[in-house]
Amino acid sequence: MERNGQMRKRKVLAVTGIRSEFDILRPVLTALQEAGFEVGLVVSGAHLSDWHGNTLALVEQEGFKIVDKIDSLFMTNRETQRIKGIGALVTGLAQTVERESPDFLVVVGDREESIATALVGNYMGVLVAHISGGDPVYGHTDDPVRHAVSKLAHIHFTITEQHQRILEKMGEDSFRIFNVGNPALDRIRQEPSLSLAEISAKLDFDLTDGCYAVLIKHPLAAEKESAYRQMRVTLEALEELGVEKGLKTVGIFPNTDPGSYDILRAIEEFSASKWIKFYKTLERRIFINLVRHALVLVGNSSMGIVEAPFYKLPVVNVGNRQRGRLNSGNVRFVAHDKEAIKAEVVKACFDQEYRDYVQGLKNIYGDGFAGQRIAGVLAGIDPKDKRWLVKKLSYVEGDAQYEA
Amino acid sequence: MERNGQMRKRKVLAVTGIRSEFDILRPVLTALQEAGFEVGLVVSGAHLSDWHGNTLALVEQEGFKIVDKIDSLFMTNRETQRIKGIGALVTGLAQTVERESPDFLVVVGDREESIATALVGNYMGVLVAHISGGDPVYGHTDDPVRHAVSKLAHIHFTITEQHQRILEKMGEDSFRIFNVGNPALDRIRQEPSLSLAEISAKLDFDLTDGCYAVLIKHPLAAEKESAYRQMRVTLEALEELGVEKGLKTVGIFPNTDPGSYDILRAIEEFSASKWIKFYKTLERRIFINLVRHALVLVGNSSMGIVEAPFYKLPVVNVGNRQRGRLNSGNVRFVAHDKEAIKAEVVKACFDQEYRDYVQGLKNIYGDGFAGQRIAGVLAGIDPKDKRWLVKKLSYVEGDAQYEA
Amino acid sequence: MERNGQMRKRKVLAVTGIRSEFDILRPVLTALQEAGFEVGLVVSGAHLSDWHGNTLALVEQEGFKIVDKIDSLFMTNRETQRIKGIGALVTGLAQTVERESPDFLVVVGDREESIATALVGNYMGVLVAHISGGDPVYGHTDDPVRHAVSKLAHIHFTITEQHQRILEKMGEDSFRIFNVGNPALDRIRQEPSLSLAEISAKLDFDLTDGCYAVLIKHPLAAEKESAYRQMRVTLEALEELGVEKGLKTVGIFPNTDPGSYDILRAIEEFSASKWIKFYKTLERRIFINLVRHALVLVGNSSMGIVEAPFYKLPVVNVGNRQRGRLNSGNVRFVAHDKEAIKAEVVKACFDQEYRDYVQGLKNIYGDGFAGQRIAGVLAGIDPKDKRWLVKKLSYVEGDAQYEA
Amino acid sequence: MERNGQMRKRKVLAVTGIRSEFDILRPVLTALQEAGFEVGLVVSGAHLSDWHGNTLALVEQEGFKIVDKIDSLFMTNRETQRIKGIGALVTGLAQTVERESPDFLVVVGDREESIATALVGNYMGVLVAHISGGDPVYGHTDDPVRHAVSKLAHIHFTITEQHQRILEKMGEDSFRIFNVGNPALDRIRQEPSLSLAEISAKLDFDLTDGCYAVLIKHPLAAEKESAYRQMRVTLEALEELGVEKGLKTVGIFPNTDPGSYDILRAIEEFSASKWIKFYKTLERRIFINLVRHALVLVGNSSMGIVEAPFYKLPVVNVGNRQRGRLNSGNVRFVAHDKEAIKAEVVKACFDQEYRDYVQGLKNIYGDGFAGQRIAGVLAGIDPKDKRWLVKKLSYVEGDAQYEA
Repeated sequence: MERNGQMRKRKVLAVTGIRSEFDILRPVLTALQEAGFEVGLVVSGAHLSDWHGNTLALVEQEGFKIVDKIDSLFMTNRETQRIKGIGALVTGLAQTVERESPDFLVVVGDREESIATALVGNYMGVLVAHISGGDPVYGHTDDPVRHAVSKLAHIHFTITEQHQRILEKMGEDSFRIFNVGNPALDRIRQEPSLSLAEISAKLDFDLTDGCYAVLIKHPLAAEKESAYRQMRVTLEALEELGVEKGLKTVGIFPNTDPGSYDILRAIEEFSASKWIKFYKTLERRIFINLVRHALVLVGNSSMGIVEAPFYKLPVVNVGNRQRGRLNSGNVRFVAHDKEAIKAEVVKACFDQEYRDYVQGLKNIYGDGFAGQRIAGVLAGIDPKDKRWLVKKLSYVEGDAQYEA
Repeated sequence: MERNGQMRKRKVLAVTGIRSEFDILRPVLTALQEAGFEVGLVVSGAHLSDWHGNTLALVEQEGFKIVDKIDSLFMTNRETQRIKGIGALVTGLAQTVERESPDFLVVVGDREESIATALVGNYMGVLVAHISGGDPVYGHTDDPVRHAVSKLAHIHFTITEQHQRILEKMGEDSFRIFNVGNPALDRIRQEPSLSLAEISAKLDFDLTDGCYAVLIKHPLAAEKESAYRQMRVTLEALEELGVEKGLKTVGIFPNTDPGSYDILRAIEEFSASKWIKFYKTLERRIFINLVRHALVLVGNSSMGIVEAPFYKLPVVNVGNRQRGRLNSGNVRFVAHDKEAIKAEVVKACFDQEYRDYVQGLKNIYGDGFAGQRIAGVLAGIDPKDKRWLVKKLSYVEGDAQYEA
Repeated sequence: MERNGQMRKRKVLAVTGIRSEFDILRPVLTALQEAGFEVGLVVSGAHLSDWHGNTLALVEQEGFKIVDKIDSLFMTNRETQRIKGIGALVTGLAQTVERESPDFLVVVGDREESIATALVGNYMGVLVAHISGGDPVYGHTDDPVRHAVSKLAHIHFTITEQHQRILEKMGEDSFRIFNVGNPALDRIRQEPSLSLAEISAKLDFDLTDGCYAVLIKHPLAAEKESAYRQMRVTLEALEELGVEKGLKTVGIFPNTDPGSYDILRAIEEFSASKWIKFYKTLERRIFINLVRHALVLVGNSSMGIVEAPFYKLPVVNVGNRQRGRLNSGNVRFVAHDKEAIKAEVVKACFDQEYRDYVQGLKNIYGDGFAGQRIAGVLAGIDPKDKRWLVKKLSYVEGDAQYEA
Repeated sequence: MERNGQMRKRKVLAVTGIRSEFDILRPVLTALQEAGFEVGLVVSGAHLSDWHGNTLALVEQEGFKIVDKIDSLFMTNRETQRIKGIGALVTGLAQTVERESPDFLVVVGDREESIATALVGNYMGVLVAHISGGDPVYGHTDDPVRHAVSKLAHIHFTITEQHQRILEKMGEDSFRIFNVGNPALDRIRQEPSLSLAEISAKLDFDLTDGCYAVLIKHPLAAEKESAYRQMRVTLEALEELGVEKGLKTVGIFPNTDPGSYDILRAIEEFSASKWIKFYKTLERRIFINLVRHALVLVGNSSMGIVEAPFYKLPVVNVGNRQRGRLNSGNVRFVAHDKEAIKAEVVKACFDQEYRDYVQGLKNIYGDGFAGQRIAGVLAGIDPKDKRWLVKKLSYVEGDAQYEA
């Protein structure tokens, strides 16, 4: 593979398969472009699915150069879905990387794209920069994948200090780890305000009294047989709070993991509700302002952990997903029990003392300037320096000698 | 996926792509069968290549049930080779695992098969038992893969106590880690003897004076541009020792990693030598006895580290491959310098004091009973127990609660 | 690949990706089993999708041995969907065929499964029996595929004499072509009756007055941009006939070709209609009896051409799909024009003279005994006879000589 | 997929997997560039294999833009090799075609690339131009593939009038078929001369007396078990003619079809012969001049049929490959019998009457101006005209109507 001469602009390829990931990548890619990097984007997975809100259009309108589209989402709910998606991804991405010959590959998190990209980088000798390693969350199929990606990645951008320390314990060399905060906050910081009236108009749902929850609930692979029942009990709790307290619920469709079909089935059963309204996806601008004004975030989205503190927003996390993740103190966990869910949502929305407490919490996920920090770090790395490419466990003493 | 009832025999699927791996797996699979497990084998990679000694025939003659053959070795020397092989493997293997519905997947080491199998097990909810994690060796593309496999695997069988301790540092729970020793030694222990005369007849190469070296040298991805030159200098050293000291060399073809083609090219150039003779592959029986009688093992095979101590055999490791791996004291490292190689080989073969020292070393890689230990451990694990399936970092306190 | 000895039962593998195909295969596979063949089934495509009515369950309850499940349906509406599906299919199927070593591969029609299977058979030296070649229909992406399959297949089972003659013109040797009629009729012939009251109960839709149409409308790739509008105008016509004439419509979801998503969107917009009711899929027993009692079949399903004559059922084919296919005289074509559709549906349902004419037509698609004929032909073929395996154009004179 | 505006240069993508194919494509691509087309090349298969003479370098030095490299050659001799190659090709190529959005896809012949490209074009709505359809040759796995490609391709460029007539019989519309001659002759026509002395120097083999044969022998899938024996008997015949008549033989390595490994094994056994010398591959310039001066071409290369008449060169075709193909009268067929091969080679080399007869034959494969004709035809086709995209059998009357 030919590599960059001194004169050539450094090139970064990022890989994205789902909107939540792209929301983290976007400010990073923008910062990289501003720092003089050539940026290319590989789009895959749910972005290419009309069944998941056609987020390709959203990616395209951001104006990044899309260097390839790789189909990786099989239309099935069987356990083969994600692993075969990885098969499609690594093969397609190797084709892309050989042609594009980037200096860095950038990925986020713990999904199929992350491990596929880390493997491609490892076997093709391209430095992999991984955002959000070291998270100790567990219970979900994705969690071990995150740590496997860390063992393959060459540069780590963590979103909290605790994650940074975990990577060090896992044997990653400190010189590779940079705590930068959560890049998703960069965009939130910069997003202009919308009023409740504007939001209500956009959603065709009257939220002008500000009395509403936002619901995002994904399936948990280890509990996928219960996905329908778990969603159903959550929706029943919210429906009753609608009737009893006038609390409206704005829901967003789940991701595509196994079990998502059952969640969609439960959602459909509440399609006639006047208190609950679901959207496949929302424009970022609407979504951020929707959350800014909400009384509570309900469900099990990672947003509750990593973004909600930036909004000073109370979160009711229903079920095991996100358990074990470090949170800023704004999240309370509850089982799939209707009365328990109701009690927690009421506390989050209407217990002023508790709301004041959340208001006063410190956000451990950074200050909204992660993108610029990442660009700065990558600008300082020579992609041909073998110190970066060759990984060893930090527990191991001595240095390898490389011959000419 | 339907799972085993109480009555059904427990099923293990193992995946193998290359002979060196299979030599480790074989005694384990035999021990598992003896312990009452149903055993299936997936064959892939170099086993299916006529260019690599047709080791499929060798696997078939062992009589294990081959449940699928998965082509994963592309005929190219480009960097895409191994990563696209992983693409083919995960896809084919997911098809196999869905049909076979095993209770355990078993893999060895750090190659494409290992990471592919670990990913399939993770995403399809099947327990993965990994043999030989925790090895701190570094400098080769495979090394980070080994650690990534450890982060995904549910059960670890280490081959030394040091590796066990490294896995614990990396955050693996101690209850998952079993130090059993190197299973390759099980077969060596059991292999009947052959005399030098018998070996010479089999090889059509007169080794009856016992004055010979065994050479196994694989390419190192990070240095693949130098593969030809490195092999060439090694062969020149050995050719000169043939002329000067009457030392014969029996060589074995390299594995299929990038650079292997260049090594084969160098080998071809010595095809007329009367001191050096190469074999694509050798029957296990011949090979073990060949090594038993040898004066020295030269090259960079992992055998020098993990098997040679069992034979009390001095090893001259040429180049960076295997550097950083724990050895029993029988291995000396040397650069790709002709005179230096010659000096080390002479010391290993003819310096009686040094040879006595090697004879007295303790083997840290076990006692040749690994297979039975592994079978015993797996027999005691309930594949439906979520404690095994759900991984968390050992640094994280508390337990997850799983709902019905 | 090991092949059958004289003693071994002959083995047939069939490949199915969608229900319409399986409805044709099923009576063939049953007849093959009755004739002493070992039968295996490979399931792929839409069968594995929960978004398409979970027809895997339906296939499983038939009790055929499923030898592998191959994911081949990507979740996208882009033009890459079907061709990448073929990539997944040929790779997965080659793995299956190598393991199973069948004597014959059997496929139907013109979809991804057909061409994938024909290619696998050609390259792996297994005889391919193709059902329903020679159909001159055109205008759809699938049509050239049907003819390509014919050029690769070794044994042709046509469903009309006209198709048989077309295959002869295309250069297929007459000894390979057997006109057997449409196997789908075998099951229709054998299906026990249900009353309108029973059907109404099953569907939860009152059809007891027998005044209803059945609607099946698939997207046409060449016109996929218009799929939504075309479905919409069809539904408007039927809705108006509901109001004006009391004609109810029972609709079935479309297949998964590009454009299907838009059709589903149009369907959703009529979800509140009291005249129109849609079902993802229906039990075969319900479906056959629903069609037996219907006044008309509307849309563009191939059923209108190949099955409706068996029921003596008038068909209104809307749009270009199925144009050019030989029909028994029961089909009238109409453009996507609301008034024209209404006029044709009224004629088909309420013009007694026209209905009598359709009643008197002869069915060119056979008599419902195709399965037994196919089993008889395959029983008489020696899969090792090279005359069957080596294809030449019938225009070419002379015979090839094959050496020992 | 976005398509070309009026202003955009028309774009052609060609796909090549092996040198023999590229030798036909090259003059066509050059002519297309000269006619103002943008030309891109996808390189796959044997081109990417160091085991097959590294012809990628050869392709690269021609200076065409390589838009992607797609690995499609698995390192095995099993029957899965080619069909899994097609799986890799269609998937990779779909990714390429979506990104590049070409107006035309161009392929040659009957290999994996041809059918993969034809399928991609059919499903993605891109016009496929196929060179050398209609050839009635049979007996080889590739032959039915050629005809399947013809059923999928939209534009046919035949290399003889007989092939043109065969395509018409097969139901292809005459407006799609253009007889242009064999493009491989374009390059031969233009290639500057080399003397025997120059050739001998390049080959390091003294051919200055002009008394030599050229040998190219590929495996025949249907007879792959005999590949070794067949090659062996051919080489024995030529070795004896060396000793007896002073006839030297210049051999070229076979293609990568199943059986090629066995042929290479036979070749190796003659590596010490002073009469026979083999080359993995030769520079085009050397090769053309080598053939220009040869007394005879021996083996079973298609070159004997399609190129040799241009040189007025006698051909001894050994075995069944190429049987049934139209030849200009310069080819004599012989079985794998040593004495028979010797007799035919002696006749071809030393029977002056027969040599005069071959000298006087007319070449049915064209005049060496095919490339320019092809460029002219494509320049006149509007890729958006549905008449070209929608195929129907010429036997079918009437026209389809396409709605807006």
